[in-house]
Amino acid sequence: MSTIVVLSGSPSAVSRTAALCAHLADRLGSLGHEVRTVHVRDLPAEALLSADTGHPRIAEVVGLIGEADGVLVASPVYKAAYSGLLKTLLDLLPQFAFTGKVVLPIVTGGSPAHVLAIDYALRPVLTSLGADHVVPGWFVLDRHIVLRDDGATLEPDAATPLYRVADAFAHAVDARRPLARAS
Amino acid sequence: MSTIVVLSGSPSAVSRTAALCAHLADRLGSLGHEVRTVHVRDLPAEALLSADTGHPRIAEVVGLIGEADGVLVASPVYKAAYSGLLKTLLDLLPQFAFTGKVVLPIVTGGSPAHVLAIDYALRPVLTSLGADHVVPGWFVLDRHIVLRDDGATLEPDAATPLYRVADAFAHAVDARRPLARAS
Amino acid sequence: MSTIVVLSGSPSAVSRTAALCAHLADRLGSLGHEVRTVHVRDLPAEALLSADTGHPRIAEVVGLIGEADGVLVASPVYKAAYSGLLKTLLDLLPQFAFTGKVVLPIVTGGSPAHVLAIDYALRPVLTSLGADHVVPGWFVLDRHIVLRDDGATLEPDAATPLYRVADAFAHAVDARRPLARAS
Amino acid sequence: MSTIVVLSGSPSAVSRTAALCAHLADRLGSLGHEVRTVHVRDLPAEALLSADTGHPRIAEVVGLIGEADGVLVASPVYKAAYSGLLKTLLDLLPQFAFTGKVVLPIVTGGSPAHVLAIDYALRPVLTSLGADHVVPGWFVLDRHIVLRDDGATLEPDAATPLYRVADAFAHAVDARRPLARAS
Repeated sequence: MSTIVVLSGSPSAVSRTAALCAHLADRLGSLGHEVRTVHVRDLPAEALLSADTGHPRIAEVVGLIGEADGVLVASPVYKAAYSGLLKTLLDLLPQFAFTGKVVLPIVTGGSPAHVLAIDYALRPVLTSLGADHVVPGWFVLDRHIVLRDDGATLEPDAATPLYRVADAFAHAVDARRPLARAS
Repeated sequence: MSTIVVLSGSPSAVSRTAALCAHLADRLGSLGHEVRTVHVRDLPAEALLSADTGHPRIAEVVGLIGEADGVLVASPVYKAAYSGLLKTLLDLLPQFAFTGKVVLPIVTGGSPAHVLAIDYALRPVLTSLGADHVVPGWFVLDRHIVLRDDGATLEPDAATPLYRVADAFAHAVDARRPLARAS
Repeated sequence: MSTIVVLSGSPSAVSRTAALCAHLADRLGSLGHEVRTVHVRDLPAEALLSADTGHPRIAEVVGLIGEADGVLVASPVYKAAYSGLLKTLLDLLPQFAFTGKVVLPIVTGGSPAHVLAIDYALRPVLTSLGADHVVPGWFVLDRHIVLRDDGATLEPDAATPLYRVADAFAHAVDARRPLARAS
Repeated sequence: MSTIVVLSGSPSAVSRTAALCAHLADRLGSLGHEVRTVHVRDLPAEALLSADTGHPRIAEVVGLIGEADGVLVASPVYKAAYSGLLKTLLDLLPQFAFTGKVVLPIVTGGSPAHVLAIDYALRPVLTSLGADHVVPGWFVLDRHIVLRDDGATLEPDAATPLYRVADAFAHAVDARRPLARAS
């Protein structure tokens, strides 16, 4: 069984990005993966901003990512790019923290005008972390994520392509395992 | 007299980026500008990461930027882009916080391989903040910034083009003032 | 009187980008600028692709750009970026062909999902050409450009912000002139 | 046996990019792939610039790409991005021409300052073409490519990491085949 870490990079307490992450974590789990979710906003602020990798909570997350086969990286769009919060975590990872892993970028935003932030802003950062397979990402409009007391549901039209992307990611994570063992 | 805010986005306690900012603040001051320097790492971590614009220290910085004629935005390159720390501050600014201002992007890094992070990563974010004039930026190699007890000096070959960029920025800030008054 | 070159980078014979360029050329002319429009598709294909700057037609265009105070660079979005046709012309210009000029990027496309192509794809190229002032650009949806026998009209909602951008560009070109003379 | 198309996007008659492509085509061939090389500069200029996909030479190249398992896309850096010549070919391909294929971006340039053009300029275009696996690319300095009468050799220090990248690409193409058949 392969393991996937879901990184939620929204600073909001009531976050569509976080709700979407929970939704996707469920789906990836149902496809047979062990999923661990990390809400960057729950990590200690001081340690994050000073890149204190000796802090136990930070060290734990770095360790989780190190052992994962796949990483889903989710962020709201702020100022035409990923959130600074998410980037503070990515900044303190080892330079090639994503080597050998499959990575899925997911971005949420209020307007389709920000779609290209996935491929022009987030993807280059993920690639620089040594990921050899960043699968096609997806942009989810805020209004397609319906917050509820017990999580979120997706508008049906938005769910279909998103699930296709998530399933392709899960498939790529699975395909990676035997290759990784063989090498 | 026009005012310039210098934003230093390095998370390091002993930072070449910060030393470079002090150096450039001196120069901009000697050209007749009132310069205020903000080290993002000195702002309260919790407030930054939760975008708490009600926090007095954060509110003060937002106010400084709001009143400035020019903003120098400096960051080290981390993972092929600006620091997450810098972005946490940019994220909590109003959407058009840079409207009517002249902005100068400065990036520092260990290798020339990261030069394009200025124009492909940082500049789009500054533009999205409504800046109508982001002047040409500059990339400074870490090894050209010589840290000393009382600040930093620059290798002469690195200083000449950097000063040219800083002076062009100062000139553009000055040129802006009468236009701003006229409009 | 300052001069502006309008570069239309669409390969289509019936082009919304070209019609939009004619529309903007009219407006810039009515604001008192001398405007020259270059349709890259009308230049000799062989000379463009082989960067033959000795070809009279190519040399003429390079000369026009060299003498201009402002350059409006317009392109449709193809494959998440500017057209290859436009880039073939930009490629054969001198490395710092835009130094001292004000540049306005305009992009057209069928979906708002491509808006960020202006700032992440086109602007870095314009900046690399030495432009010290690339003013804020604008994205125009194809369906807001209504083709007619004698040119194009714009949907009123689309016209207002576009004219604001064009007028700010014209203003920046004018503001540049005395500075250029002074320096 | 899987097939790979090598696209060389340099407009120069004596091209380091083209020589590098020949070198890499040999290596990919020796690893058991059928390799077909396309020099975009040899295609009919008029047809390329007008996106005439009915032209037999263009149609042939579109067909070759359509049937390939992998595509190596090589370009010199011009004006902080890929060549316009290369982009004219990419522009006329179907929107999802790279779906199901593995793609390797290779960029050549005179200065390491352009390294990020791979991930910020070329990769987003390749991703927009539907590629589900754009493997890590590589930047080769012009001076590491030694032109000779019968092709090119690489400086040993440059060859090692490039071969590693090319071999990882070949491996990913191979790994794709059974998946493609199974789906």
